[in-house]
Amino acid sequence: MNLLSKDELHQRLLSVGSDRYHHLHPFHLKMHRGELTKGQLQAWALNRYYYQSRIPIKDALVLSKSDDPNFRRAWRKRILDHDGDHDGYGGIEKWLLLAEAAGLSRREVISCTGVLPGVRYAVDAYLGLVRDNSLLVAVASSLTELFSRNLISLRMDQMRKHYPYLTSGLAYFVDRLTQAPEDAAFALDYVSTHAATRAEQEAVVAALEAKCAILWAQLDAIDYAYVTPGNIPPGCFVPQEEITNALKEQR
Amino acid sequence: MNLLSKDELHQRLLSVGSDRYHHLHPFHLKMHRGELTKGQLQAWALNRYYYQSRIPIKDALVLSKSDDPNFRRAWRKRILDHDGDHDGYGGIEKWLLLAEAAGLSRREVISCTGVLPGVRYAVDAYLGLVRDNSLLVAVASSLTELFSRNLISLRMDQMRKHYPYLTSGLAYFVDRLTQAPEDAAFALDYVSTHAATRAEQEAVVAALEAKCAILWAQLDAIDYAYVTPGNIPPGCFVPQEEITNALKEQR
Repeated sequence: MNLLSKDELHQRLLSVGSDRYHHLHPFHLKMHRGELTKGQLQAWALNRYYYQSRIPIKDALVLSKSDDPNFRRAWRKRILDHDGDHDGYGGIEKWLLLAEAAGLSRREVISCTGVLPGVRYAVDAYLGLVRDNSLLVAVASSLTELFSRNLISLRMDQMRKHYPYLTSGLAYFVDRLTQAPEDAAFALDYVSTHAATRAEQEAVVAALEAKCAILWAQLDAIDYAYVTPGNIPPGCFVPQEEITNALKEQR
Repeated sequence: MNLLSKDELHQRLLSVGSDRYHHLHPFHLKMHRGELTKGQLQAWALNRYYYQSRIPIKDALVLSKSDDPNFRRAWRKRILDHDGDHDGYGGIEKWLLLAEAAGLSRREVISCTGVLPGVRYAVDAYLGLVRDNSLLVAVASSLTELFSRNLISLRMDQMRKHYPYLTSGLAYFVDRLTQAPEDAAFALDYVSTHAATRAEQEAVVAALEAKCAILWAQLDAIDYAYVTPGNIPPGCFVPQEEITNALKEQR
C-alpha cells in the first residue's frame, strides 16, 4: 500500500466523520427536532458529565506519552480549557451550569452515582484506548473535534428554540466553538506529519473510527434507557418527571 | 460496622441477584415470551459470543492473581470448561454450535467484527474489573453464577418451545446447568472465608453488583440496536432479515 498524501489522509478522515460521527445518532436527531422532555435532557446532561469529567484525565494520559516539551506545552491547553485557571472556571464547570439549567443539582451530577453503566464503560474504553496505544493513535482519537463545530452550532440554535430553559447554560458550547477547531487543526497537523507509513495512516483512521464508536455508544445507552419507558437499568438516575408519572399511575 | 455472618453475607449476595441479575432484563423477558425474530436471536448469539470468548481470558487473569497452587488447580477447571481438552470441544465451541443453529456462519461469529461497541466495552470492563482489583474482588465478580442455573433452565424450555430451530444448539446450556452451580459454590465458599473485614465483605457485594451491571449493559446494547428499527450502529452486524426488509422497501 502506498503512503497517502496529506490531502488523501484528510479526505479519509472526513469521510469517517460523515459516516460515523454522532451528529447522525437518533438521540441527537430527536434532540434537535425538539422532541426530548426535560427529564431526557437531564439524563443526557448528567450522563455526558461523566465524559466531560474524564477529558482532562485522557489529556493527561496523552501528555504522559510525549517526550517533547513543545508538544506537551501545546497539548496542555486542553487540560486548562476543561479544568480552568481557578477552581470553578473551565469546561467542566460550564457543563455543570448546563446541567443546572436543565434542573439538576450540581452535587448529584458531580457524584456520578446515577451514570449509566453503558456510558461509563464507553468513556473508560476511551481512556483505555489512549492509555494502551501510541501517542499517534492517542492524538488521532481526538480528531472527532474536526466535526464538532457544526454539531455544536446546530445544537445551540435548536436548544434556544426548543428548550429555552437551557439558554442560560450554553457557555460551554460557546467556548467549544473556538476551542474545538483550534485543537482539531493541531491534531490534524500532528497526525499528517507523524504518520510515516501507510500502516500508521491506517491506524490513525482506525483510531478516529474507534472514537466515533465511543461517542455513539454513549448515546445508544442514553436513548435506550430514557426514551422507551421501563428501560432504566437498576441503580441509575431517574428523572423527577418519571417519578411523578409513576406516582400518578399508582393512584 | 460489624462483620456479617456467613449467612448474612449470603443473603446480601442473593438480594443483589434478585434486584439486579439480568433475568429481569427486558430483552430476556421478550426472549422467553417468544417475541424475538431469528435475526434478533442471531444478533444476541453473535454479540454474546464476544463475552464467551473473553471468559477464559478473564479466568487466566484470576489465576495470575493467586500464589496458591490449590486455588489455581481448582480455578483452572473454568478455563478447561470453556476451551475444552482438544481443539473444538468446550463452552466456546458449543456457543458456536448455538450460533450456527441460529443461522450464523462460524467465521462471521469468530471474527467479532460485527459486535456492538456497547457490548465490547462492557465485556472489556469485566476484564478491567478483574485485572485491576484484588483476587477477592475478582472471585466475587464471578458470583452471578449463583443465579444462572434458573435462568438457563427457563431459557432452554422457552427456546425449545418458541424457537425450535435452536434445539440442536443447546449443548452449551446443558453443560452450564452443572458447571455453574459447582463454580458458584466454590466462589461463595472462597469469599465467605477470605473476606476478613466488613469492608472486604462490602467489596464482595459491590463486585457482584458491578458484574450484574456488566451483564445488564450487554443486553441494553442488544435490545437498543436490534429491537427498534434504525438503531444499529455504523459497522455492526445486520441480520439478513433486516437486509431483506430494506430491499423490499426500496422496491
